[in-house]
Amino acid sequence: MNRLRIFFLALLLSFSFDILPMLGTSLAKWIYYPGDFEIWLTKNIALRRTERNQPYPPMWRVDPAYGTVVFSKRISLMKPEKASIAVDGKYFIRGLNNAIMYEYNPKSFTLPAGNYKLSVFVENYQTVPSILFESESYPSNSSWSASSFNDDHVEASEYNSSSPTQPPSSFRLKTVPQECKLIEETVDYRLYDFGKNSFGYPLLKGVNGNGKILLCYGESKDEAMAGKLAETWDELDVNHLSVRNDTLATKAFRFVKIVKSGTALYNDFSLLYEFLPVTYRGSFSCSDDTINQIYQTALYTLHLTTRECHIDGIKRDRWVWSGDALQSYMMNFYTFFDEDVNKRTLWGLRGHSPVNKDVNTIVDYSFYWMIGVDYQYQYTGDTTFVKQIYPRMKETMEFCLNRLNKNGMAQGKEGDWTFVDWAPIDKKGEISFIQLLFIKSLMAMKNSATLAGDEPMARRMQELYVCNLKQFDSTFWSPDKKAFLHNRLNGRLSQAVTRYTNVFAILYNLVDDERKAEIKQSVLLNDSIPDITTPYMKFYELAALCEMGEQAKVLDFVKSYWGGMLKLRATTFWETYDPKLPADKHYEMYRRPFGKSLCHAWGANPVYLFGRYFLGVYPIASGYKEYIVEPNLGGLKNMKGVVPTPHGDVSVAMDSKQIVITTGGSVGGMLKFRSKTKPVCKQGLIEKIGLDQYNIRLEKTNTRYEVRYKQ
Amino acid sequence: MNRLRIFFLALLLSFSFDILPMLGTSLAKWIYYPGDFEIWLTKNIALRRTERNQPYPPMWRVDPAYGTVVFSKRISLMKPEKASIAVDGKYFIRGLNNAIMYEYNPKSFTLPAGNYKLSVFVENYQTVPSILFESESYPSNSSWSASSFNDDHVEASEYNSSSPTQPPSSFRLKTVPQECKLIEETVDYRLYDFGKNSFGYPLLKGVNGNGKILLCYGESKDEAMAGKLAETWDELDVNHLSVRNDTLATKAFRFVKIVKSGTALYNDFSLLYEFLPVTYRGSFSCSDDTINQIYQTALYTLHLTTRECHIDGIKRDRWVWSGDALQSYMMNFYTFFDEDVNKRTLWGLRGHSPVNKDVNTIVDYSFYWMIGVDYQYQYTGDTTFVKQIYPRMKETMEFCLNRLNKNGMAQGKEGDWTFVDWAPIDKKGEISFIQLLFIKSLMAMKNSATLAGDEPMARRMQELYVCNLKQFDSTFWSPDKKAFLHNRLNGRLSQAVTRYTNVFAILYNLVDDERKAEIKQSVLLNDSIPDITTPYMKFYELAALCEMGEQAKVLDFVKSYWGGMLKLRATTFWETYDPKLPADKHYEMYRRPFGKSLCHAWGANPVYLFGRYFLGVYPIASGYKEYIVEPNLGGLKNMKGVVPTPHGDVSVAMDSKQIVITTGGSVGGMLKFRSKTKPVCKQGLIEKIGLDQYNIRLEKTNTRYEVRYKQ
Repeated sequence: MNRLRIFFLALLLSFSFDILPMLGTSLAKWIYYPGDFEIWLTKNIALRRTERNQPYPPMWRVDPAYGTVVFSKRISLMKPEKASIAVDGKYFIRGLNNAIMYEYNPKSFTLPAGNYKLSVFVENYQTVPSILFESESYPSNSSWSASSFNDDHVEASEYNSSSPTQPPSSFRLKTVPQECKLIEETVDYRLYDFGKNSFGYPLLKGVNGNGKILLCYGESKDEAMAGKLAETWDELDVNHLSVRNDTLATKAFRFVKIVKSGTALYNDFSLLYEFLPVTYRGSFSCSDDTINQIYQTALYTLHLTTRECHIDGIKRDRWVWSGDALQSYMMNFYTFFDEDVNKRTLWGLRGHSPVNKDVNTIVDYSFYWMIGVDYQYQYTGDTTFVKQIYPRMKETMEFCLNRLNKNGMAQGKEGDWTFVDWAPIDKKGEISFIQLLFIKSLMAMKNSATLAGDEPMARRMQELYVCNLKQFDSTFWSPDKKAFLHNRLNGRLSQAVTRYTNVFAILYNLVDDERKAEIKQSVLLNDSIPDITTPYMKFYELAALCEMGEQAKVLDFVKSYWGGMLKLRATTFWETYDPKLPADKHYEMYRRPFGKSLCHAWGANPVYLFGRYFLGVYPIASGYKEYIVEPNLGGLKNMKGVVPTPHGDVSVAMDSKQIVITTGGSVGGMLKFRSKTKPVCKQGLIEKIGLDQYNIRLEKTNTRYEVRYKQ
Repeated sequence: MNRLRIFFLALLLSFSFDILPMLGTSLAKWIYYPGDFEIWLTKNIALRRTERNQPYPPMWRVDPAYGTVVFSKRISLMKPEKASIAVDGKYFIRGLNNAIMYEYNPKSFTLPAGNYKLSVFVENYQTVPSILFESESYPSNSSWSASSFNDDHVEASEYNSSSPTQPPSSFRLKTVPQECKLIEETVDYRLYDFGKNSFGYPLLKGVNGNGKILLCYGESKDEAMAGKLAETWDELDVNHLSVRNDTLATKAFRFVKIVKSGTALYNDFSLLYEFLPVTYRGSFSCSDDTINQIYQTALYTLHLTTRECHIDGIKRDRWVWSGDALQSYMMNFYTFFDEDVNKRTLWGLRGHSPVNKDVNTIVDYSFYWMIGVDYQYQYTGDTTFVKQIYPRMKETMEFCLNRLNKNGMAQGKEGDWTFVDWAPIDKKGEISFIQLLFIKSLMAMKNSATLAGDEPMARRMQELYVCNLKQFDSTFWSPDKKAFLHNRLNGRLSQAVTRYTNVFAILYNLVDDERKAEIKQSVLLNDSIPDITTPYMKFYELAALCEMGEQAKVLDFVKSYWGGMLKLRATTFWETYDPKLPADKHYEMYRRPFGKSLCHAWGANPVYLFGRYFLGVYPIASGYKEYIVEPNLGGLKNMKGVVPTPHGDVSVAMDSKQIVITTGGSVGGMLKFRSKTKPVCKQGLIEKIGLDQYNIRLEKTNTRYEVRYKQ
């Protein structure tokens, strides 16, 4: 569409054909094999982890990009045409009559007239085989095909660069210098403080002499002061008279303790702060300052962990974990709406064929991965992505189906890791929660199969969905306890009730309203059911409470729990937080004194809760073609904020008397609210749908709807 | 066995325990993930091809080694023990209680007492993750397990090095300097001649000045003189006053034309000849000087193409092709008996999972690959190799089975490459030759499955074998023509007869003696059946003629065909040779004037024919546990030679009156021969088995058997 528009514009501007080569140039994009830029990037992250100054690669297969790829395009030219090429890798070209074009690395050459297939064979085992092909008629773009020599010919992926010097492998995050304060100095060491948790390249200036410089990093002061017990540290061997600057590999920290030995010297320490440039599209503020501070701290936490991909924590693991990432996708939709980082994460988590292990080696994480693809579609409406990744999704599902037990239930085999949560729960046998994720995955897979035009698979998924949902329900629902039971081992049903399955049954809408109400009473609000203690699963529990209208309870919890971390001077939110621990016992985890990550993506979930359940904006048709605005103050005096969508931002402001919505570019909005008096709105038609319940269709784009109402 | 012997020797030499750490050291071997050293090596070769100075990677997937591997060993120590480690890659170690051992790259450390699993996690995406672990009780060897994070825990492979500085990735061929003669010099160029086709690193000495030096390589003088139309050339940019030596990437050639431009200069040209150090165990000489020269030239040809792996040709493609390689394995068994190069080739051809295309993208080549594994076992008796590669063999067979057509026949799908031979034959539909290779593969697979203890697969293969052989026979055998027909297309049987299927039916013993005799007359000796013109398929045809006792005919053909190349001054044997072509038309192929390879492995087949069918030595139980010696002069006055076996060499000398055999270490030999008089042998018992037919059991090892007989 855009291309045509530019083309006609070019014709209008000039009838000279001289403009056309330039036009071709501007349209060409770097292209690569779908997923491989993302897989390469994810590999780089995965291999970057260190622990106490030694390398620490993941315990799952980390694929490189395919080392050889051929890019092809059907050519049909009446007369020869000038072309040029930039390639990330070694290459050769086959053209007319399938003959090799023989100039060595011919950056500029002539495409002969004729009908033929042009093929560029690229070898690059270091980064990502990719090309930028410039010609008037055949600029490289997604109309080219790519093959990794796996009996595959797929649409090439475009990388958003048309510059010969900026192939996909030139991708880098941005950096800006960041200064710190020297807060302690003794004869033995210096201690620096950046004022808040940060991430980047430590920079030592003016290094010279003969000896060592030890840098111990800490998310807390205690960690930095712990020397080589800190999770990360560097030790420089200095042996030169000339004065140098040393930039070290990225670390995450707020404090640094630096110790010199021998005659080694440096004269300044700072940081190159590294970050993904995102737009802070989503926002939230309200009448409660603590909540506002929580929201901002959560937003900063999310930004720090939103990088090449969504990582779990900035200090540790710095890996891409499917369960953690799913929450990051959801938070991203309410903040940056950066579609690319979600896609990079989803490709990277999956890697290449074959699937011999679950995603991240965890049974639940394969399911989260498939659910994540579906979420991405629901929020963005990006069908291209679903179609591209669909074959791998199908392979993942087939892997899962091949591992079902004799009852057709998902169950970890000997040696498999079934995670659920960091909690002392029984993980043996048929776990109801795992069935639930499997059932949700079947629905996700059905949606993707439909989009990809794989109707037989879509039907198969629908049948399995119906069948498994029925079995799930009849096996695990306890009419006595009015709750789903936890698991079944060797045919014996446990009578234990845990929150997980019950929370997700509400969230995934797998039970009717009556059942939801029962679960709310018998599980959600029942103190005798063991607490969820990780922010990871708390995320879903709080969401389910909001689904059941308990925003006020959620608000109290957020204020107390996340507010508790702020009282401990958190500048980013943590991997776990137990309010009952003494102040100096918060940093230990995994049997290491500073094992706990103090900047963990799943700690940022207030950014999702406030956008999704307080501002109340969410899509009900893919890519916000239709969406709901269902604001809920949850006890706040007032609130305002913005939720990003693919069609522009939706803003919501609300107090006890007025709701103001500004729509984006979608005509499919629906405001749902309660009012004790008859509401008034000049911009839209108010529809009464029940006692004190009203709807207004938000059919006008980029329009401010003002509603007078009574709380 | 050897290890035990050394151990007891050590105990005899000294009762001091001081010797034991040394002992541990000497026993430790570098270990790696099975197949990955070989896959890495094959990748390096595959990516080394150039054509007219541009890179030319293969059109099939070329896998790197797995980038991360974990090596594990169960430890059980009563007291701490010293250990040291060398690693090719970055690494960390988990030990007692699964805790990380925290020194950075701890080359020397102490294994704590206790029962635990020691795991070394290695990352290396450049070469091959591998370790050398030295300790008294737990030296690294094949008792360690390896995992590539593919749900696999397999026996690690040992690399034959115990030196910390020589990991698998240090593998290099040997080199020696080789000099040449300046045979032409003009103002424009110099032409050098090495006297015979060679392979190595071109070496320019004393390079300096400002300009270019162009080196055009030729297997023939014509090719070198053709400048940039030569298949391979290099162009050096020279821009330095200092005098340098330049070593260029390996090339194959006899002649080099060197052209200087500008003020660029050099003062000497030579070659670092590169070769695999092999022992010339096999030999053959006879009363015919031409045959002797053919044998020696073939042996040199084979040695040049027997390198990191068996490659097709030294100039081009320098790739590992499964069909070509199968012949190289067979020739290797009669010359160098280098088991490792066969294994490297078999691993490298297969690569990693998944199998999405045939080996080398060719339908027949997947079958040859499976047959090759079986040949390797038949000649060497190496069960370890079969067990290690078996899972990949099974995956390859499943791939083939999944592609059978509705009749259960092997048939290339749209876009598949069915090769058979470079000949104008119909390659559509169900080709009888392809069925025959499939049937042979089923038998190979059955043997391997039995060795690997996979009885269900062995049974399945046996059933398919019986069923497919029956269908093959009933479909393609023509009682009228007394021959197998070529193919069937859309249910219609072609009436064409080609040699391939009929030749292989004899070789693979798929028909009885009566049928063989029919085929011999109606096909092998029938001039109206189209000739085979490639040495590739001629290899099998000549073997089949020998099977049918036609050694004399074969000798004539060898003398005329290979002798024809010698008359054209060949110093190595060619990819194809058509005696009818004029002398100056021999070098063109693939639409390029010097496309033909003049040193091609499949041109070396006389080394197989003379060992297998004239000296007549071959195993009938795996690894020569039982073997036959069935010498046949084929019209020669006399001959003598050696055939290597895993149990030492078997030598054979024969003239019209005497046969002399010297056995190796196997007690299972059987001499079969004909004699018009009653033969005499002092060393063994003569058994008469038919008219003029005798057997002697060669039951004594390393013994000279002299037999008087009459031709």
